Amino acid sequence: MIKIGIVGGTGYTGVELLRILAQHPQAHLVAITSRKEAGMPVADMFPSLRASVSLAYSDPAVTDLAHCDLVFFATPNAVAMEQTAVLLDGGVRVIDLSADFRLRDVPEWEKWYGRKHAAPELVAQAVYGLPEVNRAKIRAARLVANPGCYPTAVQLGLLPLVAEGVVDLDHLIADAKSGVSGAGRKAETHILFSEASDSFRAYGVGGHRHWPEIRQGLAEAAGREVGLTFVPHLAPMIRGIHATLYARITQETARTAGSDTSFFQKLYQDRYAAEPYVDMLPAGSHPDTRSVRAANMCRIALHRPQGGGTLVVLSVIDNLVKGAAGQAVQNMNIMFGLPETTGLTQLPVVP
Amino acid sequence: MIKIGIVGGTGYTGVELLRILAQHPQAHLVAITSRKEAGMPVADMFPSLRASVSLAYSDPAVTDLAHCDLVFFATPNAVAMEQTAVLLDGGVRVIDLSADFRLRDVPEWEKWYGRKHAAPELVAQAVYGLPEVNRAKIRAARLVANPGCYPTAVQLGLLPLVAEGVVDLDHLIADAKSGVSGAGRKAETHILFSEASDSFRAYGVGGHRHWPEIRQGLAEAAGREVGLTFVPHLAPMIRGIHATLYARITQETARTAGSDTSFFQKLYQDRYAAEPYVDMLPAGSHPDTRSVRAANMCRIALHRPQGGGTLVVLSVIDNLVKGAAGQAVQNMNIMFGLPETTGLTQLPVVP
Amino acid sequence: MIKIGIVGGTGYTGVELLRILAQHPQAHLVAITSRKEAGMPVADMFPSLRASVSLAYSDPAVTDLAHCDLVFFATPNAVAMEQTAVLLDGGVRVIDLSADFRLRDVPEWEKWYGRKHAAPELVAQAVYGLPEVNRAKIRAARLVANPGCYPTAVQLGLLPLVAEGVVDLDHLIADAKSGVSGAGRKAETHILFSEASDSFRAYGVGGHRHWPEIRQGLAEAAGREVGLTFVPHLAPMIRGIHATLYARITQETARTAGSDTSFFQKLYQDRYAAEPYVDMLPAGSHPDTRSVRAANMCRIALHRPQGGGTLVVLSVIDNLVKGAAGQAVQNMNIMFGLPETTGLTQLPVVP
Amino acid sequence: MIKIGIVGGTGYTGVELLRILAQHPQAHLVAITSRKEAGMPVADMFPSLRASVSLAYSDPAVTDLAHCDLVFFATPNAVAMEQTAVLLDGGVRVIDLSADFRLRDVPEWEKWYGRKHAAPELVAQAVYGLPEVNRAKIRAARLVANPGCYPTAVQLGLLPLVAEGVVDLDHLIADAKSGVSGAGRKAETHILFSEASDSFRAYGVGGHRHWPEIRQGLAEAAGREVGLTFVPHLAPMIRGIHATLYARITQETARTAGSDTSFFQKLYQDRYAAEPYVDMLPAGSHPDTRSVRAANMCRIALHRPQGGGTLVVLSVIDNLVKGAAGQAVQNMNIMFGLPETTGLTQLPVVP
Repeated sequence: MIKIGIVGGTGYTGVELLRILAQHPQAHLVAITSRKEAGMPVADMFPSLRASVSLAYSDPAVTDLAHCDLVFFATPNAVAMEQTAVLLDGGVRVIDLSADFRLRDVPEWEKWYGRKHAAPELVAQAVYGLPEVNRAKIRAARLVANPGCYPTAVQLGLLPLVAEGVVDLDHLIADAKSGVSGAGRKAETHILFSEASDSFRAYGVGGHRHWPEIRQGLAEAAGREVGLTFVPHLAPMIRGIHATLYARITQETARTAGSDTSFFQKLYQDRYAAEPYVDMLPAGSHPDTRSVRAANMCRIALHRPQGGGTLVVLSVIDNLVKGAAGQAVQNMNIMFGLPETTGLTQLPVVP
Repeated sequence: MIKIGIVGGTGYTGVELLRILAQHPQAHLVAITSRKEAGMPVADMFPSLRASVSLAYSDPAVTDLAHCDLVFFATPNAVAMEQTAVLLDGGVRVIDLSADFRLRDVPEWEKWYGRKHAAPELVAQAVYGLPEVNRAKIRAARLVANPGCYPTAVQLGLLPLVAEGVVDLDHLIADAKSGVSGAGRKAETHILFSEASDSFRAYGVGGHRHWPEIRQGLAEAAGREVGLTFVPHLAPMIRGIHATLYARITQETARTAGSDTSFFQKLYQDRYAAEPYVDMLPAGSHPDTRSVRAANMCRIALHRPQGGGTLVVLSVIDNLVKGAAGQAVQNMNIMFGLPETTGLTQLPVVP
Repeated sequence: MIKIGIVGGTGYTGVELLRILAQHPQAHLVAITSRKEAGMPVADMFPSLRASVSLAYSDPAVTDLAHCDLVFFATPNAVAMEQTAVLLDGGVRVIDLSADFRLRDVPEWEKWYGRKHAAPELVAQAVYGLPEVNRAKIRAARLVANPGCYPTAVQLGLLPLVAEGVVDLDHLIADAKSGVSGAGRKAETHILFSEASDSFRAYGVGGHRHWPEIRQGLAEAAGREVGLTFVPHLAPMIRGIHATLYARITQETARTAGSDTSFFQKLYQDRYAAEPYVDMLPAGSHPDTRSVRAANMCRIALHRPQGGGTLVVLSVIDNLVKGAAGQAVQNMNIMFGLPETTGLTQLPVVP
Repeated sequence: MIKIGIVGGTGYTGVELLRILAQHPQAHLVAITSRKEAGMPVADMFPSLRASVSLAYSDPAVTDLAHCDLVFFATPNAVAMEQTAVLLDGGVRVIDLSADFRLRDVPEWEKWYGRKHAAPELVAQAVYGLPEVNRAKIRAARLVANPGCYPTAVQLGLLPLVAEGVVDLDHLIADAKSGVSGAGRKAETHILFSEASDSFRAYGVGGHRHWPEIRQGLAEAAGREVGLTFVPHLAPMIRGIHATLYARITQETARTAGSDTSFFQKLYQDRYAAEPYVDMLPAGSHPDTRSVRAANMCRIALHRPQGGGTLVVLSVIDNLVKGAAGQAVQNMNIMFGLPETTGLTQLPVVP
């Protein structure tokens, strides 16, 4: 059994971690901290966990996490970077679900997150936890930076094209739509039910923190910088990300590939053949976000409208699972030598 | 392994059965029939089941279910009653999720369902599959009539009061709200998204088929007829039933019970202490339907507003799980001598 | 033209007032105050009002409302009671959309609202602004207490029965469901999209501030105290209240009325025949809340399930219109001698 | 008063036409036909129109529309083209809300709509009813082809750029999201509440009928063919279209325009300065669809993320109003010499 602590378990990624870990045969949850809710039984706050989680939130100031094997940070940004060094020094492994260790370029991080990084020396040793890219490194990692939700959907959707260099890398477009839970469980007006329901809008078009994260991943795959326009939208649903990705086929590729999608389809199928949590659909499919609701899965479909020069890739995940807590547990399984699918076998909830 | 057939698996109770059974360690699904979709792989229709369900729908006319240990009917009403006798005769056990065998009183059934009953002789041997009431009989049953969704929520919410005779049995009120999936997966205008979303309404106030079913169960518990006003409503959500139940405390009971809820709370706690799928909340709680979303659970809370003469009981279930497919699998577990919770341990999905 | 000021215009009743008044031919909006948003153009906060409302929010501390003919308070409770006296003294009429002047019984108000009333002397002269009951008094009023949303739906649904004394007045039940906008535009966790969407729950079962308000109105109509169990629920929709009302027919009435609804139907039709904003549907109808969406209308339907002893009344309103801002403008029209329907003719938005 | 007939008034564009026309001071509705609902009072089907629309649906076979001044077709495709010639010959003007006369290129129409066109001779005289482009022609038109919903949002969003030739016309991208009412009021499974709610998906990526319509309009503005990738999506909301449009700035333009949006912003503001129903927001805004809910308005905002080479235009409309019935009434006003805003002044409904 892996002894697990969770720092900051009152948000949506926290409660989703609890839901998954409570059903994980090798997970032994020993502590969950919350400054604000210290003393409150978890199941009082989330009655869905009654009889499954008997812990109460504990005060982070007095909670000893040093005897854990693994600590998850499900905190707002800028918390993990303050507390990780001590844990690592004590031999505890860390998976950070916040953004503190996602960007390799510390000044870039400081620009986007608007503050000084508290542990730049740890950034270098952090492994970006996208198993489909970094499985081997994750296995050996002591500190994993769990990817953001948009970056997971967009990178998985574009990686095969980018790695193969068969599309115009200077003008990629990611039009992404997210359920409202992606904005977290903060009491803010714009995500009230009466504001966000029955409406749709873009946000952060001028610049979103997931943009540099996506570019970093794609650049690494491409071996060069990439140009990306990224537009996130808020959709009136609880969970789910739908990324609609546009990539122009390079002239040379077009010559090779003809006017259909089979060349590209094979590229994706080969790339993801052994992946338990990437499901390549038949070309021309239209995955809906509910097909991955509450499950650790990314489904991808490829289109080439009118046999033309632009590929359209559709990539869907549940932002709280493959886009957060589920991927974190997948990383845990890899780090601790468990079968990668342990505790992650729940089927999507449809309808 | 239990060899299982499903008749009629394209509706919501059918796909929910598939979701649950695909994760059940003792279930071996051998056939699933659909007249309309014969030949189509289940996972083409429900991509959420890709890699989990490899069967295709088969034509009921040519599908041999005789070698199954158990057949579930997830059909519209009036199908199971035509096909059950043959299966039973062949030694196959049957759980009917439709309404064909729920009412003991055949003429009453014929009045509410508007047709002649095709197998009145089976009605008598059918066991009403509410485990909290009929566990022993279910264990021995060859034919189980799985309860309706409203009847499950309402009966579990009222049974302790009714059995104990501590409320006015002539004037019970059940104001019940259901998610739209309760209306099934039929192409009908009134349950279109643009009709049912962002709106709320009652329906069937003049008479609903679940009314006689609920009264039958309550009457049996009371040992006498009961008076019940039952008003179902359509709520703009996918899953969930919230039953708000009103019962007037009898004068005698009021004398005994004082002005608080402790007497009644104890009644419920005692009644459901050993039940794995009834969760009695602290008095004064307000369970939301999402606290049971996608899980086999009924949560109940008791109120006595202003310490007055009327009890208010809140009872929530997921209509597709404890109100249909989950309860059916719970019945299967009982019938086949498995631990009752086998394959039914998934936690509710929140948010 | 009526010169109008609005105190506190950033909440939902405020913006709804703006929407209605901007389309009202006799309304001249001269000031709208907000402490927090002072200086911000209204249309920056609510782009739906671009080109229609050119005012900016002004600081209440420096806004002179003395030259208004009428001031609406669209504030949280306990603001209007502090500021109304000065306005009235200066000859300004006041319509308070908050609860400060709704309860005649000041100690009762203080118990439910948890504070000392700042202007008990004004309570006596305030007129409860339910036009269907108090039209004549509203005409002469200088201070109108605009009814709460639940109280509007419930009172309009029960008044004919209660005034006529044909039902058991000791055991009325009001099971009411509200859209989330009824909870206001406060940044609170429980009304976040991801909390309230796709779920349903009761709240305040132990006691809700609208309970004494409803009882006051019904008692006045009955000429005696009434017993009422009131259970509010939160439904996953933006607007709308659906009140399901249960009243037991008295024995004497039952003798007179036979087993159908015609006696009661006539009672309602007679009572509301001349009302522009109460629409009595044919008996047996099931009004949905969308049939009044964004319109100043209450639709009511009557049922007598199974010809039995309990009447079921369905009453729907838009909580922000007939339940708040629309009714306030209806009151304004009455107070200022305008045709009562002026500026209130918009049709419901369906779908 | 304009004597108006509506053919096919049971769908969403039909009922929306009714809502708008019933509030239009110059509209006199004389007939509304429906084969299926002949004889049923409109207000029985849509109680929201009680007291506002007293007509009943009449059988199209026996309804004389010859005495109308104007007939709206709110029918499925391929109805108007059969019936328009007779009406025009009788001096009745026609606005077709279906797609029969939208495409100038008849073989193209026949390819996309899968049938022979019944009135190719009328296609030439039909005026495409986008007032912002064709106002003068609409004024003189006897037959107006009312634009599709997506084409309205996308064309208004791209026209200034395309007409000016400042972007790469070969690689435009329109990523469009629609509320479910855009799919009509047909009883089809995929638009059931339980299918479409709390989920998001693309559809028709391989080819959608609005693609040639959009290209036709853009090509006309550009004076040359344009390349367009168009991806429609279904969003879980009732009304609203959000088009996110991507256009690459040409090198020459980039030199002129610098790295900000002011050059482009001015282009739009100039183009739409006199338009009553196009609202150009400040650069960098994020319009939500609810800001135009139930109103005849298109709001547009311009972005240039990171000061880069790709412009992002956000364009929102209510698909049933500016995308259908509202625009049809705007066309009617123009055709009959009324002020263009007559009867179209309702403000958006927020929240």
